[in-house]
Amino acid sequence: MNREMIEAAAERARGHVRSTPLLSSPFLDEIAGRRVFLKAECLQHTGSFKYRGAWSALSALEPETRAGGVIAYSSGNHAQAVARAAVLHGTSAVIVMPSDAPRMKIDNTRALGAEVILYDRATEDRDEIGARVAGERGLTLIRPFDDPQVIAGQGTCGLEIAEQAMEAGAKGAEILVCCGGGGFTSGIALATEGAHRVRPVEPEQFDDVTRSLQAGHILSNMARAGSLCDAIITPSPGKLTFPIMQRLCGPGIVVTEAQALAACAHAFARLKLVLEPGGAVALAAALFHRDAIDGESVIITASGGNVDASVFQKALAA
Amino acid sequence: MNREMIEAAAERARGHVRSTPLLSSPFLDEIAGRRVFLKAECLQHTGSFKYRGAWSALSALEPETRAGGVIAYSSGNHAQAVARAAVLHGTSAVIVMPSDAPRMKIDNTRALGAEVILYDRATEDRDEIGARVAGERGLTLIRPFDDPQVIAGQGTCGLEIAEQAMEAGAKGAEILVCCGGGGFTSGIALATEGAHRVRPVEPEQFDDVTRSLQAGHILSNMARAGSLCDAIITPSPGKLTFPIMQRLCGPGIVVTEAQALAACAHAFARLKLVLEPGGAVALAAALFHRDAIDGESVIITASGGNVDASVFQKALAA
Repeated sequence: MNREMIEAAAERARGHVRSTPLLSSPFLDEIAGRRVFLKAECLQHTGSFKYRGAWSALSALEPETRAGGVIAYSSGNHAQAVARAAVLHGTSAVIVMPSDAPRMKIDNTRALGAEVILYDRATEDRDEIGARVAGERGLTLIRPFDDPQVIAGQGTCGLEIAEQAMEAGAKGAEILVCCGGGGFTSGIALATEGAHRVRPVEPEQFDDVTRSLQAGHILSNMARAGSLCDAIITPSPGKLTFPIMQRLCGPGIVVTEAQALAACAHAFARLKLVLEPGGAVALAAALFHRDAIDGESVIITASGGNVDASVFQKALAA
Repeated sequence: MNREMIEAAAERARGHVRSTPLLSSPFLDEIAGRRVFLKAECLQHTGSFKYRGAWSALSALEPETRAGGVIAYSSGNHAQAVARAAVLHGTSAVIVMPSDAPRMKIDNTRALGAEVILYDRATEDRDEIGARVAGERGLTLIRPFDDPQVIAGQGTCGLEIAEQAMEAGAKGAEILVCCGGGGFTSGIALATEGAHRVRPVEPEQFDDVTRSLQAGHILSNMARAGSLCDAIITPSPGKLTFPIMQRLCGPGIVVTEAQALAACAHAFARLKLVLEPGGAVALAAALFHRDAIDGESVIITASGGNVDASVFQKALAA
C-alpha cells in the first residue's frame, strides 16, 4: 500500500467519481469552538464514499476477471457502490446483505441492478454463503475495506481534502474520519501523510479501532448489530488497515448515538446535507468532543447519507 | 444588463462564493424520463443562491457607501445572504422581514449579525418601514431581485452551469429555474444565452411570471402569502427582470405544493440534499411535468435549503 496506488486510483476515477465539496458554516464553527470544514461524501455517487473504493477495485480488475461478475458483503453502502460500479463497468454483481439492513439500502442495491442475497445475522454465516455463491459462479470478491485497491480508492478522498484544505486555509488541521473497518481512515491517512493527522471516530459499543490502537493489537467488538450507525459497525479493524492506522493515526474518538443524531440535525440545518448517523460521527466528535481535538481548525468527513426517512425524522425531532 | 457584468461579478466572487456541484442520480433520471442534472445551490453560503446576488451587490458598492450600512427586505433567503455578506464586508445590515417568515430564517438572520425589523404583512407596508429606516440612518437598499448587480450575481450560477453542463454532456439542455421575482431566472438566462434555454418554474397561485410571459406584460398574483414555497412568492416580475425573461426564456411551468414537497423527499433520498419547497419546484417540474420539457436531458436549479424541520418532516411523511 502506498501513495502511488492512491494516485493511480485517482487517475482511474477521473470523470467517474465525484470531487465532493468542502463545506463550512459559521454556526458550526461556533459550536465546535474552531473552524470546521466538512468533506461532503454523502454527495458521492450512491450516497457515500464507498463508491470510491468500489470504482477503484472494479477498475483495477483484469477485464476478463471483471467480466465474470463480482460479489460483495455489505450492510448497504458498499453494496450500493459495488452494484453501481459493476453496472457502469458492464458486469454483474451479487451482494450478500443482512436482512436487518436499512430498507432503503436493500431496495437501492436491487434497483441499481445487483442480485441481493439476504441472510440472517444471528443464524447464518455471510462468509459461508458468499464463498459458496462465489465458487459456484466464479465471482470475484470485492472486500469492503481490507483490500489494497479499495483502500487506494478511499484514499482519493484524502488527495482532494489535502488540496481543498490548502485553499481553505486549513493547513495542518486534524482530519476526523467516520471509521468502520478502517478502509476510509487508512486511505485518507496515507493520502495526507505528512500534511494532516487523521483521527478515527466511532460510535459507542463499536469502538474496536479506538481500543485496538490503545492496546497496540487488533481487538473486536462484543456487539455485532443494533446501532443506528449501521454503516460503521464492523467487528474489528482489518489486517491491512490496522497497521496503517497504527503508524499514521492519532487516538480514536468515541461518540454516543444521541450525539450522532444531533450531528445529523446540525448538518440538516447548517449545511443542507442529509447524513446517516454513521456518516455523522465525525461531525459529532467535532461538535461535542472539542477538547479531544487539537488546532484552530478541523476537517471532518461526512461519509454517507443513506438513511431511512424514519431515522432522519428521529434526528430532526431530537 | 449584459454578460460582462456577470463576468465581473464572478471575478469579485472568486474565493468568496462557492462553486456548487452539478449532481445527478439514476433514480431521478428514471422518474423524469430523461437525464436530470441538479445545480445544488442549497449548498451555497447561507443555504441559497441569494448569496451570489448579495455578494455581488455589496462588493460593487463604493467603499464609503458600503461602510454606511445596508438595508434589505426579505422573507428570509435574501435576508440571510445580505446579513452574511455585510459582516464579511465589515459593514452592518438591517433586514425588514415579515413576522410570519419561517422561524429558522428569522433566527439565522439575527445570528448572522443583522438587525431584524419584523412587520405584519397584513397591516404594515414594508416599503414605508424600510424607506423610513433607510432615510433616518443613511442606509443603502439592496433589492432582492430588481437590481443590475443582484441579477449579475445570480448570473454567476449560470456561468458555472454552462461549464458543468458541457463537461456532463448536457449541451443544449433546458434549464429549469425556481422563480420568484426573476433575478435568478434572468441572471441565468443572460449567462447561458445561446447555449441553453431557461424555463421559469413557479408554485400554483404564485405563477405571476408564467402568466406575465403569456400575456406579454407584467401581471401580479392575487395571493400574497400562505405558501410553503415562501422563498419565491414575490407579487410580480421585476421591471428589470421581466424584459430579460421575455427576450430569453421559454414558457413557465407551474407545480403544486404537493409536488414541491414530493420533490423535497426525492432530493432527500436520491441526492442527500435538503431543499426547501420553494427551492424544489424546478425538480418537481422535471419529475412531474415531463411532457412540458424538451430534450434528452434537463438541468434544474435546487435554489435553497432553508426549511424548518417541521416542514421537512411533512415532506418526508407525504
